[in-house]
Amino acid sequence: MKLSKMLESIGIDTSLNKDFEVKALAPLESALENEVSYIDQNKYLSSLKESKAGAVLIKEKDVTHVPSHMQSIVVPNPHLAFAKLSAFFAKDEFAYPTAEKNQIQIGENTTIMPNVFLGNNVKIGKNCTLMPGVVISDNVNIGDGCKIFPNVVIYRDTHIGSNVFIHAGTIIGSDGFGYAHNEKGEHVKIQHNGKVVIENDVEIGANNTIDRAVFGETRIKKGSKIDNLVQIGHNCTIGEHTLLVSQVGLAGSTSTGRNVVMGGQAGTGGHIHIGDFTQIAGRGAVGKNLPPNTKWGGHPLMELDEWMKFFVTLRRMVKKKSE
Amino acid sequence: MKLSKMLESIGIDTSLNKDFEVKALAPLESALENEVSYIDQNKYLSSLKESKAGAVLIKEKDVTHVPSHMQSIVVPNPHLAFAKLSAFFAKDEFAYPTAEKNQIQIGENTTIMPNVFLGNNVKIGKNCTLMPGVVISDNVNIGDGCKIFPNVVIYRDTHIGSNVFIHAGTIIGSDGFGYAHNEKGEHVKIQHNGKVVIENDVEIGANNTIDRAVFGETRIKKGSKIDNLVQIGHNCTIGEHTLLVSQVGLAGSTSTGRNVVMGGQAGTGGHIHIGDFTQIAGRGAVGKNLPPNTKWGGHPLMELDEWMKFFVTLRRMVKKKSE
Amino acid sequence: MKLSKMLESIGIDTSLNKDFEVKALAPLESALENEVSYIDQNKYLSSLKESKAGAVLIKEKDVTHVPSHMQSIVVPNPHLAFAKLSAFFAKDEFAYPTAEKNQIQIGENTTIMPNVFLGNNVKIGKNCTLMPGVVISDNVNIGDGCKIFPNVVIYRDTHIGSNVFIHAGTIIGSDGFGYAHNEKGEHVKIQHNGKVVIENDVEIGANNTIDRAVFGETRIKKGSKIDNLVQIGHNCTIGEHTLLVSQVGLAGSTSTGRNVVMGGQAGTGGHIHIGDFTQIAGRGAVGKNLPPNTKWGGHPLMELDEWMKFFVTLRRMVKKKSE
Repeated sequence: MKLSKMLESIGIDTSLNKDFEVKALAPLESALENEVSYIDQNKYLSSLKESKAGAVLIKEKDVTHVPSHMQSIVVPNPHLAFAKLSAFFAKDEFAYPTAEKNQIQIGENTTIMPNVFLGNNVKIGKNCTLMPGVVISDNVNIGDGCKIFPNVVIYRDTHIGSNVFIHAGTIIGSDGFGYAHNEKGEHVKIQHNGKVVIENDVEIGANNTIDRAVFGETRIKKGSKIDNLVQIGHNCTIGEHTLLVSQVGLAGSTSTGRNVVMGGQAGTGGHIHIGDFTQIAGRGAVGKNLPPNTKWGGHPLMELDEWMKFFVTLRRMVKKKSE
Repeated sequence: MKLSKMLESIGIDTSLNKDFEVKALAPLESALENEVSYIDQNKYLSSLKESKAGAVLIKEKDVTHVPSHMQSIVVPNPHLAFAKLSAFFAKDEFAYPTAEKNQIQIGENTTIMPNVFLGNNVKIGKNCTLMPGVVISDNVNIGDGCKIFPNVVIYRDTHIGSNVFIHAGTIIGSDGFGYAHNEKGEHVKIQHNGKVVIENDVEIGANNTIDRAVFGETRIKKGSKIDNLVQIGHNCTIGEHTLLVSQVGLAGSTSTGRNVVMGGQAGTGGHIHIGDFTQIAGRGAVGKNLPPNTKWGGHPLMELDEWMKFFVTLRRMVKKKSE
Repeated sequence: MKLSKMLESIGIDTSLNKDFEVKALAPLESALENEVSYIDQNKYLSSLKESKAGAVLIKEKDVTHVPSHMQSIVVPNPHLAFAKLSAFFAKDEFAYPTAEKNQIQIGENTTIMPNVFLGNNVKIGKNCTLMPGVVISDNVNIGDGCKIFPNVVIYRDTHIGSNVFIHAGTIIGSDGFGYAHNEKGEHVKIQHNGKVVIENDVEIGANNTIDRAVFGETRIKKGSKIDNLVQIGHNCTIGEHTLLVSQVGLAGSTSTGRNVVMGGQAGTGGHIHIGDFTQIAGRGAVGKNLPPNTKWGGHPLMELDEWMKFFVTLRRMVKKKSE
């Protein structure tokens, strides 16, 4: 659809110097010339110059920062306009039942047990087992030697490597939790058209949830192991050989280096990086970037050494006070 | 069944002035004259007067508060007697296989994918998709334009509005966690015969659990959005346009106003109200009613301003002490 | 397989005084003479003497502690060697499709609803209901009067008593989270060949995860009640009539006495015992053994009395400081 037509249908009345067929929405850093992006925070203004985006949704006050090759679309709430545009790119979870006859490829010695549902264009390697109740959506690719335990659900476009085990009830690729908000306080869904990539030798426990990316991908790197009931938000990257213990929660766009360990019930805010080999004690609440090779715990988070002594001293102080 | 017969079968030996066919158990405030209620806390004694309940389970010391139109049933542990009576009203999850031939209504342009199970007396609107592995129990009502993702389970009597999305693995309407305790420390199940109501435009993420009410309903109001792995206890009410981020846990009978935001891993005690537009930071532990338009965080909970400074000051104090 | 052959295939070059057909791996305290064990912590050295194990993986420095009836296998990292050996004993989740014709026994008046999958050698008692989407793996034994709600998954070898209710989406018997680590920082899976035992009158809510033991069993004792989204790690023992509220997490080898109560989002470290009748407030973080008949809360954990006053005093101190 042409940009002008899209804008018209979401009620944005603007005159364009440049109209084009919009191929996708994308973040500034990766957008191409037939793609549309948005900006609503001052700190990203400097990235406008390098962006190849064909058009950008932007506030009036910032419009002078837009380079000449890019069409500005002035709106009061760029994030909201972006969410509304995302509806044009929403895909159904399954093409079923109007699909191109289930183009499924299954490798040698792979067992598909009863009550498994495979979507269109699914490709599964050799020596895999898909156990009862597994649901695989469209365009999913699974490598060799994988075990997909009962009632696992894998949403569309997910890419899974070899020797991956996914335990019962885990959900891979559900929509990320992303909404824009209008002036009435209503939440407008941002369509998540990215995907999840799981590399080789990953094991994922039971009843986890791993959301797909809004753009691009959520990625679990080679050799990482995830316990049960863990939440991994959209656009997270889990580094190689990382361990996430039960009930850990990672907010959107968290990334970890390699061999990170997070203890049970630990959590992070969004857009945070945890350095290689860094360890978070159980229940640790990570609210900022952490350097490599360090140890942390508590809420608020402290270096583990400080945390271990902190409450000991406090309890002594309180006891004295109460005497 | 007659009240006298019910009491006899649970071993309560009492003489009644008034016997009647018991239609249901109910809380004092909504009980009708053919219903039975109970009371075991002083603070509710004043509501006896206005109640229309036909009979009330009550401790001997409180019996003088019972109005003349109501039959008192004196027992040492009213809550336990109530739990035992609730067994008479337990319903099976499915009437299957002795059912009245699956009275199912499905609207135009609704897709029911393979391996979906529909119970008796299920009604589904237009333009819905029920994806593989979905299980819908008896007497469930779903509006138009809903997407029910794979392996979602919806227990009996649930009522779902229009344009509701429920992501994979979420369980709607499971029994609330409610037991009475006998003198041997055993737990006696309180049958949960209430339901869950989900209003229009709600989106619910993956692997959530939303329990049905003991009586009445658990309700998620219009436009609210719930992330993954969230627990909503029995008899909660979530106000309009509220956001619950991943791993939030709400104990029974929590209610929120409209446009409340609760960050990841936040939780509440039971019977608490959070006012309109109030925000709880991630991991915030809500143990009391909160006024509207305020911000809170931490455990124990403090206003966000205090919480932000509190540990900064404490760490300074502890550092000085250790020098 | 002979011990010498196993060791050779994992690259351990050693000469044995005594070779034998290895029947299983086992912990020192229960290992028999045709079984292999390991030791890598000083505190367990004293248990070598009483052990009947046929052979033990051990560090060179500790080898003098090995009694004469036991073959020592000297390796730099006994835990890692043990993990590698465990691969020889890994069992497939289902013998399907090469199985001995599904030897299934189902008692009178038991209803198996559509889309249920039963593995080989499954035995189910009388008056049970298995609801749609339930998956029962091989060698599972279920007593009388059980209700298994939709989409529950029960892994192989699980033993369930009578009058047990398991709500939708719960996973029983998934692999515990146990890995050894090699010199490259990679994680080597320890095969979990133990099982889960659930005694009579237990009720388990929705979307829980209960892991099976590495050896021996994870056990939920008679009359215990578990809410939703609870994690129970491998080798835990939950005492009789214990209550675990929603989102509680128990690390591996936690045990509780009888009538323990853990509030919502509480958690424990591994190898901890909580005494009879002890109560943990919501969000309480248990990091040490707790005596019976006590009450605790907070993180770090304090007796409930101290915890209730602790922050009150601290806030007063901080306020004074800021004035």
